[in-house]
Order: sequence, then C-alpha cells, then structure tokens
Amino acid sequence: MSVPHPYWLRDNCPCADCRDPRGGQKLFRIGDLPDGLTAVETAEDAAGLTVRWSDGHRSHYPAGWDAPAGPDERTEHAKRLWQAADFARGLPEADWAAYLADPEERTAVLAAVLRSGFALLRGVPAEERRVLRVARSFGYVRETNYGELFDVRVEPDPANLAFTSAAIAPHTDNPYRDPVPTLQLLHCLRNDCAGGDSGLVDGFRAAALLREQDPAAFAVLARTPVPFRYRDRGTELTAERPLIGLDPRGAIREVRFNDRSTRTAALSALDPAELDAFYAAYRRFAAIVLRPELRLDFRLAPGDCLVLDNTRLLHARTAFEPGDGTGGHRHLQGCYADLDSLSSTLAVLRRGTAVLDELEALFEGEGSGEYLGEAVTLAAHMLQAAALARAAGAPPALVAAALLHDIGHFRGSGRELMAGTDNRHGESAAARLAPYFPPAVTEPVRLHVEAKRYLCTAEPGYADRLSPASVHTLAVQGGPMTPDEAAAFAAHPFGADAVTVRRWDEAAKDPSAPIPSFAEFRPLLMESMHQSAFAPPRR
Amino acid sequence: MSVPHPYWLRDNCPCADCRDPRGGQKLFRIGDLPDGLTAVETAEDAAGLTVRWSDGHRSHYPAGWDAPAGPDERTEHAKRLWQAADFARGLPEADWAAYLADPEERTAVLAAVLRSGFALLRGVPAEERRVLRVARSFGYVRETNYGELFDVRVEPDPANLAFTSAAIAPHTDNPYRDPVPTLQLLHCLRNDCAGGDSGLVDGFRAAALLREQDPAAFAVLARTPVPFRYRDRGTELTAERPLIGLDPRGAIREVRFNDRSTRTAALSALDPAELDAFYAAYRRFAAIVLRPELRLDFRLAPGDCLVLDNTRLLHARTAFEPGDGTGGHRHLQGCYADLDSLSSTLAVLRRGTAVLDELEALFEGEGSGEYLGEAVTLAAHMLQAAALARAAGAPPALVAAALLHDIGHFRGSGRELMAGTDNRHGESAAARLAPYFPPAVTEPVRLHVEAKRYLCTAEPGYADRLSPASVHTLAVQGGPMTPDEAAAFAAHPFGADAVTVRRWDEAAKDPSAPIPSFAEFRPLLMESMHQSAFAPPRR
Repeated sequence: MSVPHPYWLRDNCPCADCRDPRGGQKLFRIGDLPDGLTAVETAEDAAGLTVRWSDGHRSHYPAGWDAPAGPDERTEHAKRLWQAADFARGLPEADWAAYLADPEERTAVLAAVLRSGFALLRGVPAEERRVLRVARSFGYVRETNYGELFDVRVEPDPANLAFTSAAIAPHTDNPYRDPVPTLQLLHCLRNDCAGGDSGLVDGFRAAALLREQDPAAFAVLARTPVPFRYRDRGTELTAERPLIGLDPRGAIREVRFNDRSTRTAALSALDPAELDAFYAAYRRFAAIVLRPELRLDFRLAPGDCLVLDNTRLLHARTAFEPGDGTGGHRHLQGCYADLDSLSSTLAVLRRGTAVLDELEALFEGEGSGEYLGEAVTLAAHMLQAAALARAAGAPPALVAAALLHDIGHFRGSGRELMAGTDNRHGESAAARLAPYFPPAVTEPVRLHVEAKRYLCTAEPGYADRLSPASVHTLAVQGGPMTPDEAAAFAAHPFGADAVTVRRWDEAAKDPSAPIPSFAEFRPLLMESMHQSAFAPPRR
Repeated sequence: MSVPHPYWLRDNCPCADCRDPRGGQKLFRIGDLPDGLTAVETAEDAAGLTVRWSDGHRSHYPAGWDAPAGPDERTEHAKRLWQAADFARGLPEADWAAYLADPEERTAVLAAVLRSGFALLRGVPAEERRVLRVARSFGYVRETNYGELFDVRVEPDPANLAFTSAAIAPHTDNPYRDPVPTLQLLHCLRNDCAGGDSGLVDGFRAAALLREQDPAAFAVLARTPVPFRYRDRGTELTAERPLIGLDPRGAIREVRFNDRSTRTAALSALDPAELDAFYAAYRRFAAIVLRPELRLDFRLAPGDCLVLDNTRLLHARTAFEPGDGTGGHRHLQGCYADLDSLSSTLAVLRRGTAVLDELEALFEGEGSGEYLGEAVTLAAHMLQAAALARAAGAPPALVAAALLHDIGHFRGSGRELMAGTDNRHGESAAARLAPYFPPAVTEPVRLHVEAKRYLCTAEPGYADRLSPASVHTLAVQGGPMTPDEAAAFAAHPFGADAVTVRRWDEAAKDPSAPIPSFAEFRPLLMESMHQSAFAPPRR
C-alpha cells in the first residue's frame, strides 16, 4: 500500500507525539524520519485519512487538513492594487476613538493596511509622542538611528531634504536599511501652511504596469541589486537590494524607490550593456511612478495619523511655505514599525470574530432546541442568564461567563447527561473557551456545575428549589459535596463567581421573560477576550 | 563627443547642485534628466573626468569616483564560511570591559559577527536585563511579542520547546517573522546543570555544501517558499520564505531552518513532483546541518553573551538536567536586534580608524618637515603641544585639540601663509575634523589663531614673547584684535579653551623637549570622537 508524498504526509502528522497540542510546534526533526518511509495501510472516509507507517507510527488526518493556504499575504497576489480614482468615494479611514473601542473597526483598519497599503486614523490627539501609541495599538516600534520617533518639520541646517520645505517626490523610506522598516506612521501635529499636501503611490501597481508595458525592463530592475546609502556623523547604513523585489515564484513582494539614497557609482561593476539597460528601465519605472493618475493626493490635518506599508507604497509631499514665526507651520511626527506584528494582531482579532460567529450560529441553530426538559430553549436559558448578569451590573467577564456557561451541552452532549453519563459540560465549555477568554470567564463556566453541588451542601433549602431536570442531573454529577469538598470550593479564587453565575443559571428558566439577542453581547465578548490582542495601548 | 552610459555618469555627478555636500543625498530625480542626454565635451586627466552635457550642466568626477564596491556584505561572498575545526585555536571573543573601553576591540567583535556570524563577549555582568545593554552598544533592540527580552529557562507549562530541558536541534529563530530578526543575543545568567551546552552551525556553509553536492536540491530549496507559523493566545505570526534565500544574482543571502515552525500542510498547492523534490532536498539539507564536523560546540558560562547572525547561523543546545530546587539551573536572557545598525556602527568605527591612519601618515610624512622657520618640525610641534596638555591634566578633548591644532598647515598650506596669504589654517583644520570630532575639539582648533590676536590685545607683554615666525604671520592674520573684537572673543563659549591651546602652542617649539609618538594618542583620539558612534551604552 502506498500514499503519494509519504514524507510530506508524515511531516504533517497531527498526533500529540508529533505536534505540541498547545502551539502546534512540530516535535520531531525532518531527519528523524527513516529513509524509505512508506505507508503500509491507509483508510479514508468522511472523517479523514488514517495511515499506518512502515516504522509503526499511526497518523490520522482530519478531512480538510491539507486545505491549500491563500497567497503569501506580502505579495501582489494578496493585495488590491490601486490608482487614485479607486478612492473617489473616500479613503480607508477610521476615527481613533472608534478604533480603540471597537474590535471590528480595528479589524477594518488593519485589513486596509494589508490590502490597500495604508489607512488613515482621524482624531488621534495632536500631541507629541502619540504616534508611538498608535504603533503600539497593533505592534512594536522599530527604533532606528533617528530615534524611537522622528520629527518632520523645517530645520535650520538640515542634512536631509525631509527637513526642509521643499517638495519631495514619491519614495519609500530607508531603502539603505536591511531589514527595511515595513511600516511607517506619520502623525500630523500641525499643518497650517500653504502647501504641504501628502501624496501616495501604489508601488506594486507601478511595478505591475511596468511589467505589462515593458517586461524586459521589469526583469532588469528585479535582477539588479542597487546600492543605497545613508551617512551622517554617527551613521553609515548601506543596503544592496533591487528596486523591485520578487518572491521565488516571480510575484512582486517589495518595492524600494528613493532617488536620494542611491549610491549608483558602485554599479560600475555591471556589464556595460546591463548598465544601459538598468538606466533605461529605472527611468521608465520612475516615469510610471510620477503618472498623475497613480498619485492619490490628500491633506493631513492635525490629529490625522497615516499608517502605510513601506515595502509597497511610495509617499510624497508638495512644497510648502515655511513657517517664519508669524505664519503657518507643518509638523509631523513619524515612527517605524513592522507588518508581521500588524498581521498577527489582525489574525487574532479575526480569530475572535470567528469564534463569536461560531457561537452565534450554535445559539441560533442547535441552541433553539429543547433544553434538557426545561421550559425554555438552551439558547434562551443562556441569554436570560446573561441578561440577569447584565441587569445586576456584573463586570463584563462575568456577563460573558453567564452567557456561555452551558455551551458544553452543544453538539448533542446534553443528551448524554440526561441519559445518565456526566458530560462534564463545565470542563468541556471552559476548554473550548480557553484559547480566547481569560480565567475570569472560563473558571466560573468550568465551576458552575460544582457550584450546584456546593450550594446543595452549604446553603440550607437550596436543593429544594432545583428544577426537576436539575435534580436528575445532580446525582449524575456526583451529588452534594462533602463538607471538605465544600470548604475547598469556597476557598477557590473563582468559587464565589461560580456561585454567582449558578444563581443566574437557576433563575434563567422563565418562559415568560424577554430574551435578548446574542448579537447584543458581541462587543462585550470581544472586550472580555485575552487582553494581549484586544487592549490596544500595550503601555 | 560621447561617453558610455551617459545617464549613469550624470546620475553620479558630485556637484553641490546634484548632491547635498553634507550627507550625500541626491538632489534631483532620475526622471528630471532630459531624454537623449549626451556629453558634448569631455576632458580627462590625472585629476579626473570633466564633462559638459547636452543640457548645459557641467560635471567633474574625481579620479576613482567609480571604484566598484565590494560584495554585498550580507551575502556569502562577504563571509568567511566555517566548520568547527576552523575555531580550534579559539572563538572570536572579547572581554566586555575591553570592548567598552577600546574602540579597536569593538571593531574586532562587530567585524567577527559580520564575517563569521558570531562573537562571544565574556564577563558581561550576569545580571537581569544586561543583554539589552549589549544590544544597545551597537544597535537597537527589536521588540517582539516575546517582549524586549525573553528568558530561556525551564517553565512549568511551556508552549515552546525552548522552555523545557530538552535538546534543541540546530535552528534559526523566528522564521515565522518577516522581517526576521537578523541578530540574536543570548546572555548566560546561570548554567550549573549537567548538560545544556551550546552549538552553532554555519547555515551558509551548509547551504554551500548542498549546492556543491546536489545543485538541483539547492535550487529546489531556493525556489520553494515554505510557510512558517507561530501561534499562541495573543499571537499568530506567519511568513512564507524559502529555506535558502538568494540575492538576485544567486548568492546565498539568508537561511531559515526551523523544523518546529514549518506549516507544510499548506504546501499541498505544490505540483506533486515538486513536493517530492522539496522533501528530498529538505531532508538532504537537514542531514548536512547535523554533520558533526559543522557543529561548533561550547559551553556558555555566567556572564557570556553570544551575539549571532540569525539570517545565517543555526543555534542548538544539548539536553540538560532541569533544576529541581536543590540542583543546578540554566537561565539565559535573550533579545533580538538587527544587522544593519551593527554594520553602521562598525563602519563609523572604521571611519574613525581611517582618519587616524591618515593623520598619522601626515604626521610621519609631511609633518617631519620644516615648520615655518621654527626650530622643530610641524609634527614635533603638535606632539609637544599635546604632551604639554596631557601633563597639565587637560580633558581628552583639549589634548586632542592641542595635538591637531595645526593640521591646517598640511598639504603645503603653511607655505602660503609665510608667503603672505592667510591660509586660514584654523578654519580649514576645524572643517577637516568636524565629521569626526565634536566642537569641544574643533572649536579650540578653529579659534587658536584668533586666540593669538586676542592675547596680543588682552595680555600686556604677550606680543613681545612671540617667535619671529609668529610675529611675521600675525600681520597676515589681521594683527591684534580691536577691544570690541577682544570682548566678543572672551565671551565665546570656547574662547578660554582656545587661549589654553594657544599657550601650549607657543610653548611647543623646544628642540630639546622629548617628543611622544602619534600612536600614543590614538585611544584618546578615538574616545574624543562623536559620541553617537563611540560611547556604546546609548542609555
């Protein structure tokens, strides 16, 4: 019996000996697999593929395990290439306060940076150093020789054109750095000069146009490393990279374009014909970059913060009247950051959205069925519990716990319990929620069954008030606690919260009570998730 | 009349309209040059090439302007590829205190990281967070989701193999990040377990061996982007990059190798034959990486800090006995940084060394000639002045000023002065030194002629003590100051220092006094240079 590509298949064995179940790290070395590995037995059905290997190992691959990934998100294939007219109906922008308060707004802004190469945050307080806080809302500041942040304004004795009032042609920043900063932020503190407007050009679009119109020129730029340099008293940065960087399959992955920093004297080593071809291609690309229809012009107002992909977008500004002490001034603060962290933050936000979508579908599907003989549906029961928690002014984590306390009954698991098998639905719900929610949510959920057993022991008369279904399940779940068990439970850090949830649980079986919608609780649920991804200002 | 490659030549015009004389930024856009540009007149001699262009511009290119650059310092061509036996006589290492105190020691350490991929600093105090200070001695810390720094030690519930006591096979760090951190630092705080030794493998060497032995396998790895992933509660990092990254000309430029983080399920999109070829190549490369003769083994002791190129070197550790509260412990602190800043710091250090070499050559060559009719040579005069400053306990900057005060007379300029033209040798010396030295050095140098004019006015009897040559030049230099000029000079922030240097200047014309060597002053001169590059701990 054989399977195609045995090493690939075996490399992806998802068993707990091969992959750490927590983070998915692979636990063996590719060279640990024996030479001549083959499958000696395979079985495939709707649940997936099972393989017994020539070295005795067994693997089970769930259906869909090998779904191909989307395109590399850093290449042109994952982008929306644009020209100015594509934004006739408005820029990708958001209000800073909404961005901070609403994870879906954050998702939209970060997705725009990945897809269109930029987004504009409005209303970021026009205060010094705020740009750092914007960067930390999705990633980490890349400190450079310019500092954690840099000021873009007219300086008395500038070493760099940026610090004059002159126009600056479209360029990417810091091409002389490797790794180049993949993100740039520019926060406008003041802009009341005549002139000083901003411009953006999609460098991937410009490169794609060059490829379309002059494939040979495109190929020359992609294969010619160009030396870039920046030099001041304490700095001498050099990098040698092509103007158009491709992935190994030929997709556009990076553009570096900055006339000011080229150090082309060093190109003298090129073959003479190649040198002429390079200059013809360079001038042709430069002409495309300057096409008016590619350039998106707009004006930064105080409080605007532009976030842009510095591996793709070129930015520019028009000349302005420099401030003279009586007239206007233009002052931006900028910093650098990196795309990988932004992308991570976006993925985790989407993970949160995805789990809420899944929960909402369960509430609206399976949850609308019978709830273990009670007079309300399972969904109505949990939604009522959450409404009671909300009405009691409980903190968000506890409202979330009340809302989600019985999700362990989903997937038909509740029937097992009624049939006399403890389905341990507190534990299973907590395990399902743990990747997304902190212990303040998952622990009261995990312990809410134990809380019933505790109250039967600790609170006289409690057992008498249980519903008939609850009395039935109590026995399956272990009956009332012993006094020692009850004392241990009372001392548990989340014991009291579990008891609180339990009381809402008992009260949430009223067929006449109003039932809120799951959607109402989505913002609160997002807010209750792990802080690392959802509380933007990390410090 | 025509020249080859007119656009390339013109792109490199060094005139002040085309290049900012301060930082060398190019001041025009490549597209600003007219179509059909030609040279209408050229003249070439020992001083260089002069060109008149069809658009009327004139350019002068000094001889040697187009010296080809060395190889891209990030590729294999700029490296010393190694195997373990190459370090039989010792590792590239330095003592932390010497590294801090001696710029030549810093130069050697940073050069080793670029050339061999690593260096070891010994005696870095085994204290928490010191690793950050090491990183800041040459660059900037790259913060990640792991924090500014991370602890490598046994953790109770590790999500990552690094935080166990297991052996870890040779790997590069964070292949799921793009940009990947190009430097890693590992600082040993404690290591008294059995086991837990460190290993390094030169990934460029391993890749070069694969290319030699199996060029097709090498090509497969270079052209196949591999998906890498890291996932935890607040993080989801992904990158898609080949195991062997090449520059556009095919030179090895980056190695990513980390079995634990591959997410090869996504390779299902590959052509079936390519998938088999990839796994054969991957396994062959993995076998080379594990060859004992490639692996350099050593043991980190408390206080050792390893600095390694994470785009090239693979690092590993052997298993160890975990500390159990009574036995040993192993605790490293690590952080990430980037090669470009390290390389910049090294270039600036070398710039300092180069200017000292040049000055030393002038002292020993031209400086050994006659000094404007005085009884000592020009070099002896300046060295005596420096000796007087040193004997007086002057701060390093003022000793440096005394040593360098008359370098404006070099290049034959002193003869002009004696012939009756003010050579403004204070100004020219200060301008020559300004790229390297701060005002505390350059200002007393610039003002030491003015100080003579000042003293002639302000100090009764001073003029009478001047040497005959000095009396002669005083008239050329403007004669004694007016009382207003003298008052302004006395108020200058560096006026007093200039007067101090002037007095050593006057006294340093003694043919019988001992003459120290220039070399004696090199450490002091390095120390007096711009702090941005030479005072390692930036904060």
